[in-house]
Amino acid sequence: MAKAAGFTLGELARTLRATLEGDPAAVVTGVAPLESAGPGQISFLVDVRFAEAARASGAGAFLAGPDVSGLPGPVLRVHAPQQALIELLTLFHPPSDAVPGIAPSAVVASDAKVAPTATIGALAVIESGAVIGPYARIGPLAFVGAGAEVGEASVVHARVALCAGVTLGKRVVVHAGAVIGADGFGYAFDGEAHRKIPQVGSVLVEDDVEIGANTTIDRATLGQTIIRRGTKIDNLVQIGHNVEIGEHSIIVAQVGIAGSCRIGRGVVLAGQVGVADHLTIGDGKRIFLLEGELPEVVRRLRAAERRLAALEARLGAGEVPNG
Amino acid sequence: MAKAAGFTLGELARTLRATLEGDPAAVVTGVAPLESAGPGQISFLVDVRFAEAARASGAGAFLAGPDVSGLPGPVLRVHAPQQALIELLTLFHPPSDAVPGIAPSAVVASDAKVAPTATIGALAVIESGAVIGPYARIGPLAFVGAGAEVGEASVVHARVALCAGVTLGKRVVVHAGAVIGADGFGYAFDGEAHRKIPQVGSVLVEDDVEIGANTTIDRATLGQTIIRRGTKIDNLVQIGHNVEIGEHSIIVAQVGIAGSCRIGRGVVLAGQVGVADHLTIGDGKRIFLLEGELPEVVRRLRAAERRLAALEARLGAGEVPNG
Amino acid sequence: MAKAAGFTLGELARTLRATLEGDPAAVVTGVAPLESAGPGQISFLVDVRFAEAARASGAGAFLAGPDVSGLPGPVLRVHAPQQALIELLTLFHPPSDAVPGIAPSAVVASDAKVAPTATIGALAVIESGAVIGPYARIGPLAFVGAGAEVGEASVVHARVALCAGVTLGKRVVVHAGAVIGADGFGYAFDGEAHRKIPQVGSVLVEDDVEIGANTTIDRATLGQTIIRRGTKIDNLVQIGHNVEIGEHSIIVAQVGIAGSCRIGRGVVLAGQVGVADHLTIGDGKRIFLLEGELPEVVRRLRAAERRLAALEARLGAGEVPNG
Repeated sequence: MAKAAGFTLGELARTLRATLEGDPAAVVTGVAPLESAGPGQISFLVDVRFAEAARASGAGAFLAGPDVSGLPGPVLRVHAPQQALIELLTLFHPPSDAVPGIAPSAVVASDAKVAPTATIGALAVIESGAVIGPYARIGPLAFVGAGAEVGEASVVHARVALCAGVTLGKRVVVHAGAVIGADGFGYAFDGEAHRKIPQVGSVLVEDDVEIGANTTIDRATLGQTIIRRGTKIDNLVQIGHNVEIGEHSIIVAQVGIAGSCRIGRGVVLAGQVGVADHLTIGDGKRIFLLEGELPEVVRRLRAAERRLAALEARLGAGEVPNG
Repeated sequence: MAKAAGFTLGELARTLRATLEGDPAAVVTGVAPLESAGPGQISFLVDVRFAEAARASGAGAFLAGPDVSGLPGPVLRVHAPQQALIELLTLFHPPSDAVPGIAPSAVVASDAKVAPTATIGALAVIESGAVIGPYARIGPLAFVGAGAEVGEASVVHARVALCAGVTLGKRVVVHAGAVIGADGFGYAFDGEAHRKIPQVGSVLVEDDVEIGANTTIDRATLGQTIIRRGTKIDNLVQIGHNVEIGEHSIIVAQVGIAGSCRIGRGVVLAGQVGVADHLTIGDGKRIFLLEGELPEVVRRLRAAERRLAALEARLGAGEVPNG
Repeated sequence: MAKAAGFTLGELARTLRATLEGDPAAVVTGVAPLESAGPGQISFLVDVRFAEAARASGAGAFLAGPDVSGLPGPVLRVHAPQQALIELLTLFHPPSDAVPGIAPSAVVASDAKVAPTATIGALAVIESGAVIGPYARIGPLAFVGAGAEVGEASVVHARVALCAGVTLGKRVVVHAGAVIGADGFGYAFDGEAHRKIPQVGSVLVEDDVEIGANTTIDRATLGQTIIRRGTKIDNLVQIGHNVEIGEHSIIVAQVGIAGSCRIGRGVVLAGQVGVADHLTIGDGKRIFLLEGELPEVVRRLRAAERRLAALEARLGAGEVPNG
C-alpha cells in the first residue's frame, strides 16, 4: 500500500481504523505540525490545548480525537489520536532496514558471538565473550565490553559504551554517547585517602527499555543495577550503583538517582529531579522539582511580612523581645 | 610580525591599536594571569574588580581599559580590553593549521561529499550522503550520520556524534562528546506500555554557534530543533525536541530545556537552569537558578516568626484558633 | 592462596587480620549483599543502620565491625569493616591483567611515546607528542590529543577524550565518555556577537584522582584547571575553566562548578550542587542542595500564616495598612 507519492485519505482511514470525514480520494504526501502544514500534508491534534492552532492550520487534512469540531479540512477521526499518530508517522517514515553483517572496519573478538542477522557498524569494538543477538544493531564507534550481552532486536547507537558484563534485553534502544556499566561511586576514607570499593556487580536492562544520549548507568557494587521492562530514560540522566527502577517508569532528562534507590513501577521523575541515596519511591508517583514553588513561597512570605507590620503598627512601637 | 621570541610592546600597541604607556622596545614572550605573570609576560585587566590584584602583579606589562591607574608597569591602554585580549591571545597562540585530507583510517561512505580543503581525522566515520564543507574539520573518532551536513569552516571535535540528517552552518564548533540529533523523548502510553512516537524531524544549527562537550540536542518529532546564529552553548546541556533558541543567546552548563520551548534572542540561561516544556522566554531575558534565593527566604521567615512570637507574647497566652 | 573454589574462613581471617567467630574450615565461594547472600556466601555489615537486615540474612558468614551482635552465622570481626570489605572484594574479584602492547587497530602517532608496559586498546587514537606512561591503559576508542600525558598505572577507559596538552598523574582513573580539556566557556560580546576568548590553557589532574563517566573538565583560559591529588569525581560533573579542586575532595554526580572557583581540600559537594563562578569553598566543607529544605520552609510559612490570622482575628477586622 505504501506509495512514494503519498496516501489517499481512504487508505489512511483503513490503516488507522479511523472514520473519515471528507473525500477518500484526496491525497496527502506527508505529516507536518499544525503551524507549518500545507494543503498537501496531514496534521494532527492529539491535545485539545492546541484546538485553536488546529482551526487556524493550513493542513490538507487532520488526524483528531472524537471531541474536536470545527477543523478546516477533512478529518480522520480516531479514539486514541496519539496511538494513531504513531501509526501515521510510521507509515510516512518507515524505519530504515539495516543490512546484516559485520562492517570490515569493526574489531570483533574471535570468541564474541554475533548473530548472523545482527548488524555491527563501522569501527565498533566487540570484546571477548560478548553476545550480540538476532536482529540487534550495534552502531558505528560503539563499544561492547567483554561478556556484555545485547538482546534480540536491540539498537545500540553510535558511540555508546556498554561496559564489561552488562546485559540488555530485547528491543532495548540506547542512544549515542550513553555509558552503561561504568563503576559506581564508592570509596572508604582510611584516614589519609579515599580508597576505592571495588565495583564488581553489573547492570541489567530489561526488554523494551530506552536510554537517552550521554546518560550514565553505573554498575552495582555487588549484584545488579536493574532497569525493569518498558522504562524510558531521557538524556544526561545519572543512575547510581545498585539502583532498581520498576517497569514502565519515565525518567526525564538530567535526573540524578543516587546509589541503592528503589524507584517503583510507573513512576515519573520530571527533568532535573534528584533522588538521594537509599530512598524508595512508590509505584505511580510523579515527582517534580520543588524549585518551581519558590516564587509562590516568596509571594506568601512577603504578604505575611506586610500583615505582621500592620499588626505591629496598630499595637504601637513597644519593645519587641528577641525570640 | 609574529616572532618565536615574543613581541615588543610597540608591535603589540600597533596591532591592538592601543596607546602605550611605557617603553616600545620592551619585549614580552607570553600572556599570563595577574597572579602568575612574571616580568617577561604581559597580563591583562578586563574587569575593574581585579584592579587590586593587578597592582600587586609581577607582570612585565599590562593590557587595560581607560579607567585603571596605578599599574606597576607599562600599560597598553585600549577602550575595549576584552576584545583586545582576544587579539592578544590569538597573537601568542595562533590556531594550529589543519592539514586537509582524509585520514587513511577514517571510514567515509563512497557517496559522501568531502570538500578537498576539509580535514577528516583518524577513525572518523562519515556515512552515506553526508556533506563536509570547505575547510571544515572532523575530529578523530567523530561520527557524521547519513545525510548530515557540516558547513564551511566548522569544527567537529573528537568523538562528537552528528546523527543522520543534522545540519550545521558555517563556523560552527562542536566539542568532544556532544550528541546532536538523537531522538526526542516522546511516548504515548497505550494502557500497557509507553509506545515510542517516531522522531522523524531533524536539527538545524546555524552559523557561528558553539556547542559544549557532552551536550545533547535532540531532533524534532517533526520539523526541526533550531539553534539560531551566534548562540553559545556550554557543556552537558540538554535541549529537547522541537526547541528553538534565538540568535546570540548564552546557555550555560547543565541547563535543561524541555521539548517545544521557544527561547528568544540574546537570552542568558545561567548554569543548571531548567525550562519546562512549551515555555517561551522573551528576548534579552536573563534567567538564574532560584535556588540561590533560598537562604534569604529562610532568613526572612525566621525574622517573621520572631516578630510573630513577640506579638503573641504581648497579647497574652490566649487560645489561638487553628487556621 | 586464591582458589577458584573459594576461601576458608580461616584463610580470610588471616588475610583480613580479622578475629574469626566460627569454624575456620568453613568455605565461602563469593561475596553478596545481605538480602541476597546464600549459605555459601559471605556478606558484610559496614553500617549499623543495616543491622536488622544482617540479622535476617541467609549469608553463610559475615564481615562486621566490633559493635554488632546477634548475627546468624560465623563472623569475621574487624575494626574497620569498610577497609576490610575492599580487601575481601579484591580477593574474590582480582583486577584483570592487561596485556601490554598496542592494538593493531589503534592509530598511534609516530612521535608519541608509549611505554612498553602500557596497553593501548583497539581503535584508540594517540596523537603527536602524547606520552603514555608505564603500565598505563588506554581503552578502546579512546582519544589522547597532541602532547597529552598519561602517568604511570593510570587507566583511561573506553571512549574517553583527553584533549591536547592535558596531563594526568599516576594511578588516575578516567571512566568512559569523560572529556578532559575541552575549551572553557568564555566570550566577549562586541555589540554584535559573542566573540570567543581563546582558551589556551590546559588541565592538570594529579595522582590518584578518579573521574566519572561523561564528566567534563574544561581547560583553563590561561594557566591550568587543576584537580589535586586523591580527589574523586562522579559522573556527569561539569568543571569549568581555571577551577582548582583541592586534595581528597568528593564531587558527586551532576555537580556543576563554574569558572575560576577554588574548592578546598576534603570538600564534599553533594549530587547536583551548583557553585557559581569565582567562589571559594573552604577546606572540609560539605555542601548539599538547599532544595531539600523547601518542604520545611513551606510548612513553617503555613504555620506563621495561621498564627497571623489568629492574631488578626483577635484584634478585630480593622483596616490593615498596606506595607
